[in-house]
Amino acid sequence: MAAPSPGCSITLRVEAPVSAEAAGRLTTCAGESGAVVTALDVRESSNDRIVVDLTCDCIDNAHAETVAKNLESLEGVAVRKASDRTFLMHLGGKLEVTPKVELRHRDDLSRAYTPGVARVCQAIAANPEDARRLTIKRNTVAVVTDGSAVLGLGNIGPKAALPVMEGKAALFKRFANVDAWPVCLDTQDTEKIIEIVQALAPVYGGINLEDIAAPRCFEIERRLRESLDIPVFHDDQHGTAIVVLAALHNALKVVGKQPADCKLVLSGVGAAGNAIIRLLLPLGFADIVACGRTGAVHRGQTGLDADRQWVADHTNRDDFSGSLKEAVVGADIFIGVSAPDLLDGDDIAAMADDAIVFALANPDPEVDPHTAGRHAAVVATGRSDFPNQINNVLAFPGLFRGLLDAGVNGISDDLLRAAAEAIAGRVAPEQLNPGYIVPSVFDESVAPAIAAAVREAAE
Amino acid sequence: MAAPSPGCSITLRVEAPVSAEAAGRLTTCAGESGAVVTALDVRESSNDRIVVDLTCDCIDNAHAETVAKNLESLEGVAVRKASDRTFLMHLGGKLEVTPKVELRHRDDLSRAYTPGVARVCQAIAANPEDARRLTIKRNTVAVVTDGSAVLGLGNIGPKAALPVMEGKAALFKRFANVDAWPVCLDTQDTEKIIEIVQALAPVYGGINLEDIAAPRCFEIERRLRESLDIPVFHDDQHGTAIVVLAALHNALKVVGKQPADCKLVLSGVGAAGNAIIRLLLPLGFADIVACGRTGAVHRGQTGLDADRQWVADHTNRDDFSGSLKEAVVGADIFIGVSAPDLLDGDDIAAMADDAIVFALANPDPEVDPHTAGRHAAVVATGRSDFPNQINNVLAFPGLFRGLLDAGVNGISDDLLRAAAEAIAGRVAPEQLNPGYIVPSVFDESVAPAIAAAVREAAE
Repeated sequence: MAAPSPGCSITLRVEAPVSAEAAGRLTTCAGESGAVVTALDVRESSNDRIVVDLTCDCIDNAHAETVAKNLESLEGVAVRKASDRTFLMHLGGKLEVTPKVELRHRDDLSRAYTPGVARVCQAIAANPEDARRLTIKRNTVAVVTDGSAVLGLGNIGPKAALPVMEGKAALFKRFANVDAWPVCLDTQDTEKIIEIVQALAPVYGGINLEDIAAPRCFEIERRLRESLDIPVFHDDQHGTAIVVLAALHNALKVVGKQPADCKLVLSGVGAAGNAIIRLLLPLGFADIVACGRTGAVHRGQTGLDADRQWVADHTNRDDFSGSLKEAVVGADIFIGVSAPDLLDGDDIAAMADDAIVFALANPDPEVDPHTAGRHAAVVATGRSDFPNQINNVLAFPGLFRGLLDAGVNGISDDLLRAAAEAIAGRVAPEQLNPGYIVPSVFDESVAPAIAAAVREAAE
Repeated sequence: MAAPSPGCSITLRVEAPVSAEAAGRLTTCAGESGAVVTALDVRESSNDRIVVDLTCDCIDNAHAETVAKNLESLEGVAVRKASDRTFLMHLGGKLEVTPKVELRHRDDLSRAYTPGVARVCQAIAANPEDARRLTIKRNTVAVVTDGSAVLGLGNIGPKAALPVMEGKAALFKRFANVDAWPVCLDTQDTEKIIEIVQALAPVYGGINLEDIAAPRCFEIERRLRESLDIPVFHDDQHGTAIVVLAALHNALKVVGKQPADCKLVLSGVGAAGNAIIRLLLPLGFADIVACGRTGAVHRGQTGLDADRQWVADHTNRDDFSGSLKEAVVGADIFIGVSAPDLLDGDDIAAMADDAIVFALANPDPEVDPHTAGRHAAVVATGRSDFPNQINNVLAFPGLFRGLLDAGVNGISDDLLRAAAEAIAGRVAPEQLNPGYIVPSVFDESVAPAIAAAVREAAE
């Protein structure tokens, strides 16, 4: 599955002898090494030498080194410097905190800070709800992680998780003008995380939990929702569930099936799987089979934790107890939020006609999407280099925009479903096709549409 | 002491009958009501009526209402709307979180977020020190409070403290390009505060503790300094101490005295008083008497807490046990960081010739500065409407700029003294006079000078 990606884009400063085909030699060599050349800029030129910046997408760090080595092996060619465009982008961090007020002279200072600020403090002390009007609480969300389940990287800890949380905060601002701040906690103790987020809450209008491992994430979210008067949302659960629901809504239109007639098989009963089931159940999906690592979750099992027991109690009406591969036989819908390469082409071929396959494990899906596409009617992944990317970025900015605007205290499943419908609705009937079941993440109309739907649902 | 202040600036939209002296009537009335008119803008005009926006500084909310009422009592005059410029400035909060990276298209997203960000995370996981290079940790400071001792307002809690912390963060950015973020904690338990700040530390390159009540603040700072690998600085202690030291350095030059020859009386043994003594002691001030609410702190007292016992052990060489008023007789220097109106003109007259008086209680000083000025050679306060304002804004931005640049793990008293010297040095010998012993807070050269001194001291 490994392919060159703009996430691993490098720029090589290369010196080469002048000739009519100098540039061609370099790009050909990079291309034959498996890189995708995206730019070539001549930096210096003399009678006998040229220096060019050759930018190309690679697969990973090792591949980038191979490309450089292959270029150096060309006669007369030297690689002076290799720079990694991703690392350059992250240098010094990706966020800054900027004042919205001007501080030009003493009068400004007297209003923004002492002594004028004292009257604003007193107003809030007298009426704490005024904090939503007179402070950043009005527009600010905490992006909270303990670094225990970061992307596909696992438990890498709070410092290494920070670049992701910064990126998330940047997306919040970019897509919905929400001010989001990374909170990377140096503890993975459930009780301490709950206590800390409760203590931090005065500054925030919402809490976005992120990349916290299951089952800890369920307990943390549940308890914080009970104790706080601001919305608490675990994006790995509900963000994914919202976008899956939106995509499924449109995919069913494409194949012309109804929820009640579909057999749906879900792979993965962690954070996302659980939330997907909760959103799907009231929509008429009567035949859901959820599979964990050891096969289908069913009522005959013992020793299930509370969250899996809930899954067993609410799905698998026929008490099926086989493997995932057995479960997908005859299924209309497969949703994978689990691990790479669990299914092959034969498995997809064994599904019902006009099957829907969402293989969302990242970066490597449950089944190769090309292979799946030969047998299924609709295929979606979490990857940006295939059609139908199921990306949480579609949901969380607009969702929190709506929550902050409405000043709501909590989140209901109905509200999440309203967000999903708003996303699905951004694909017009005339645009809908097997390769376009969700809007682009750069569709500027998505976040406002979700925000409007959330405000309406909150009323 | 109450005087109109730009911190309480209101704009009144006033309708009045047209006449040659219409505007004059309004401004005269506002002036006679004790307000300081700062602007008059005509908004509408017709044959018989004008509508003007009259902006004036008032003393407080009650005074603003009186001014409006007096205007309304003029014949034919109606006040349509009163708006408070301070509250308008705080609406929606004073900070925003902005991305430093562009997110224009899918390739940007692939580098700033998934999948590219994964390689940055892995680099930090492999080498945690890289967080200072590749994340916001490099330039970011937490402004941490529990809302227990906010300005002169006391224990108003975390929500009501937020406008101050936002203002502080805005000053950090304005004066030293430091990204600072408010952390207002909904707990006043020493152990919990310590635990929470430790857990938050991965995101930050420094911790600025703010407006936390003594003696809790001492314990919190001490323990955090021991356990964290980033600098921890309680501004109410050390920020004040740095600027006092800078001002005292220059005031002694003005009066031509040496530390060893001076009797110094300090009023207030809370957060600031303690820190001031620690910075002064190694500089040769041999005769320091510190007074609390019950008079001089001395070795004969029993039941002192650890911090006051330290004061008793290190000051008051003559075991003086009288009152503050008795202590200042014959003193060369008075430094007040305590409470309003503790001394009068007779007390200042009883000090030594060419006395130095720093009356820093806010908003109302220990002694009226006008009165003090009739007897002392140099007078300084914490107020912006008198010369020689001792304002922490002179210290903290440049100090943290230097700490972040140097990537230091801790703070020493020597480093704080270096910062004080840098501030003092921004008043050139030819500028120095009894009314100019510290630079203006808007002197753009102060923060870089402190930062340079801190970087040098850190090496």
